[in-house]
Amino acid sequence: MKVLITGGAGFLGQRLARELLARGSLKDAQGTPQALSELVLLDVARAHDFGDSRVRTEVGDIAERDVLERAIDVDTAAIFHLAAIVSGQAEADFDLGMRINLDASRLLLEVCRQRAHVPRVVFTSSVAVYGGDLPAVVQDDTALNPQSSYGAQKAIAELLLNDYSRRGFVDGRVLRLPTISVRPGRPNAAASSFASGIVREPLNGEEAVCPVAGSTRLWLLSPRKAIESLIAGLELDGAALGRQRVLNLPGLSVSVDEMIAALREVAGDAVANRIVRRPDERIERIVGSWPGAWDTSRAERLGLAGERSFADVIRAYIADEGIVLG
Amino acid sequence: MKVLITGGAGFLGQRLARELLARGSLKDAQGTPQALSELVLLDVARAHDFGDSRVRTEVGDIAERDVLERAIDVDTAAIFHLAAIVSGQAEADFDLGMRINLDASRLLLEVCRQRAHVPRVVFTSSVAVYGGDLPAVVQDDTALNPQSSYGAQKAIAELLLNDYSRRGFVDGRVLRLPTISVRPGRPNAAASSFASGIVREPLNGEEAVCPVAGSTRLWLLSPRKAIESLIAGLELDGAALGRQRVLNLPGLSVSVDEMIAALREVAGDAVANRIVRRPDERIERIVGSWPGAWDTSRAERLGLAGERSFADVIRAYIADEGIVLG
Repeated sequence: MKVLITGGAGFLGQRLARELLARGSLKDAQGTPQALSELVLLDVARAHDFGDSRVRTEVGDIAERDVLERAIDVDTAAIFHLAAIVSGQAEADFDLGMRINLDASRLLLEVCRQRAHVPRVVFTSSVAVYGGDLPAVVQDDTALNPQSSYGAQKAIAELLLNDYSRRGFVDGRVLRLPTISVRPGRPNAAASSFASGIVREPLNGEEAVCPVAGSTRLWLLSPRKAIESLIAGLELDGAALGRQRVLNLPGLSVSVDEMIAALREVAGDAVANRIVRRPDERIERIVGSWPGAWDTSRAERLGLAGERSFADVIRAYIADEGIVLG
Repeated sequence: MKVLITGGAGFLGQRLARELLARGSLKDAQGTPQALSELVLLDVARAHDFGDSRVRTEVGDIAERDVLERAIDVDTAAIFHLAAIVSGQAEADFDLGMRINLDASRLLLEVCRQRAHVPRVVFTSSVAVYGGDLPAVVQDDTALNPQSSYGAQKAIAELLLNDYSRRGFVDGRVLRLPTISVRPGRPNAAASSFASGIVREPLNGEEAVCPVAGSTRLWLLSPRKAIESLIAGLELDGAALGRQRVLNLPGLSVSVDEMIAALREVAGDAVANRIVRRPDERIERIVGSWPGAWDTSRAERLGLAGERSFADVIRAYIADEGIVLG
């Protein structure tokens, strides 16, 4: 089976690639495991190829048709579309966000539509499609009300994928991801970047700024579970999804204070005390518009699961990154 | 004040133009009436200019940037964007629907964004943004779930207008119109065309096909009220709308059987008996996915009103069209 990952050089893209290569197969639309014959990693920078002959790296601008036509083969059976401009950057650069989060997503669907077969396509979406006066737990039929350009662009991509699927141009699924925490590496331009930073930086012996109130409730998912969910989402039976191709993934609802307490529990006072509280009105406004939890019974019925405690998430991060606690 | 109507040669566009010319003024963003200095009617066919020197007609493809740049002046203060591909046609010709209902709407917002001022822009949307398992009365926070490409395109245009308004590029409002009935003229490619046809054709002495079950509930608005609502929607105080620029307009919830009974009451048995029932699965599927009523308390608080009885709507149609009952 030929598989494409857009954003293949990114954090999730690389983790997903590694996991797919390790598994060596993916279920096809009939539920039968098929060996992974080719894995295309497309990004603006050349992705790491893991020294694996099944990997083909492609470098290009995903908003250009010929780039996508090169990446999507006549027999590409599965596409994970992870390339995106993150929330903070899409708010700062409206045109760039529209180009990548909207135009490139639509172009990808259009190139699939040209192909004779019907590829399975996974889009990722976000808590940012919600906003305004929200119930404590967002339900499947709660109206979208994005309060950022990123959220609006993701909501539009969801509508496009649903309609392209309904018309039979693709077999699509949208997974609304909770905020991913703990991401390794450096801070990024996402408004939610601190949700990883307040764990990662203190564990690295560095100061971390917490820009929101301690009572701010976040809806989180670990990188491990995110990768598991992406693969499970692709392998889901399309018929079980029906017309509604958008799925709220299970996550963990925690306040920032609870996150810090979990870090204190796992890594001790000296680490947790490296967090400095410095409110940032711009970030509070964006993050504060997102839901702190959503109903995930549909995803659970379809076999997807979240995590149980944020302390466990931190422990998994420490294990994955080989961090030695002082 | 300079005003633009896209779809200015269409049925609603022409009625709106006539009403604006008769009123002679529109309230500006501060609520002060300003004389109508120029009314641009843009459409693919040349619009009737009412022999009025204030009218400028423009012919062109609204999905082309130079056409919109010609139509939207540096001081165009109000835009009614009515141009659209109707539901049945957007389902039959996917690319055309995307081009006009999505791309042209976005281009219009982009051209406004280039202008130094912030024009008020009215988009029209539709019951077709809803679908799936709906409550008996759709609420303001009921999730959008379009079951047609037309509905998906309208939902996307709503999201765009909300975000362009939030960013201050335009001062936008979306009015979700109930199905307009009774439209004069001939049937069109809208799936809801019969909602006018089953009144209009029998009154013209012709047979009319009713393609849906008599129990099908429609959410209707007369042309008179639609025009009133478009103008009221433009004149609404933007601050009162806040972040949520989409408004469900008040309408009349009636079943097809009730519509036929109203026609019988107003025009007699001979007229009502010209309706032939011939179910059409394609139309039933599209129309059946639309809500039969929605909560309109927000629009009512903002001063918008619907009608009271479908018999009155028929009587208004008969008066407007100068029909003499036999």
